[in-house]
Amino acid sequence: MKQTQQRRSDCPINFALEMFGDAWSLLIIRDIVYFGKKTYGEFLESEEGIATNILASRLAQLEQKGILVKHRCDADKRKELYMLTEKGLDLIPILVEMAYWGAKHDPETGAPQAWIDMVKANKESMIALIRDTVQNGGSIFVGADSVFSKLAAEP
Amino acid sequence: MKQTQQRRSDCPINFALEMFGDAWSLLIIRDIVYFGKKTYGEFLESEEGIATNILASRLAQLEQKGILVKHRCDADKRKELYMLTEKGLDLIPILVEMAYWGAKHDPETGAPQAWIDMVKANKESMIALIRDTVQNGGSIFVGADSVFSKLAAEP
Repeated sequence: MKQTQQRRSDCPINFALEMFGDAWSLLIIRDIVYFGKKTYGEFLESEEGIATNILASRLAQLEQKGILVKHRCDADKRKELYMLTEKGLDLIPILVEMAYWGAKHDPETGAPQAWIDMVKANKESMIALIRDTVQNGGSIFVGADSVFSKLAAEP
Repeated sequence: MKQTQQRRSDCPINFALEMFGDAWSLLIIRDIVYFGKKTYGEFLESEEGIATNILASRLAQLEQKGILVKHRCDADKRKELYMLTEKGLDLIPILVEMAYWGAKHDPETGAPQAWIDMVKANKESMIALIRDTVQNGGSIFVGADSVFSKLAAEP
């Protein structure tokens, strides 16, 4: 027997789909990367309205699959913070491509046009900047250390 | 009211997930892009074992969402061929990033290492070549007009 866990095939796309290919899982990862969310309560507030049982099960799955890791918050020990692992940070190019596709094909997109243009013009360097920012606890859009603030501070 | 169809949010990633964010839909698109499949019977044979009712519903959804278009086969009028539209071809960068992630993080990946290295080294030009090939009825891996054959024929 080749593996202990049942899988549908050895195709890398199927592997990716079995690891995170669920809409709710991807929306949790989006919340971290784009909006800097880190706690159960923050994920629960998202516009798409995830149910508590689904959120809890997806967080546990993402942790078990090595995409998220859970830390105790230093400032408030009762609080648990979710962060992306290296494996999770490697999902950023997929999220960027999905956002780009959605912005291009949705006539009512909520994506800022300036952002889309910037990603299109310098995809590789933008992905590197996003990865670095998220790895250090920041996000694309929210907060003083966000990608947006960094770019606005440039001369 | 802003839109006639109910949607969870105006986020472009959520839009993308509502359009094609289902594992079976993405595996059908993978079959077209990577393996040059075009017919219901070919999709049904895939290793992951899609059920007939799910395949039929996903094909109808992808057509309704403007990602696939159905043609009658010229050589055999009883046969229907599914092709990607422009909107569907625009999914290729997402599939390439997913395959790259899967190949990197799956210790038992079925992806050829030479292919992964080639995509990594020249991502933008490989994506353009894949798009052009698939648009003309070819695929990445299968057939005389595949991306693999084209690259092998280069001096």
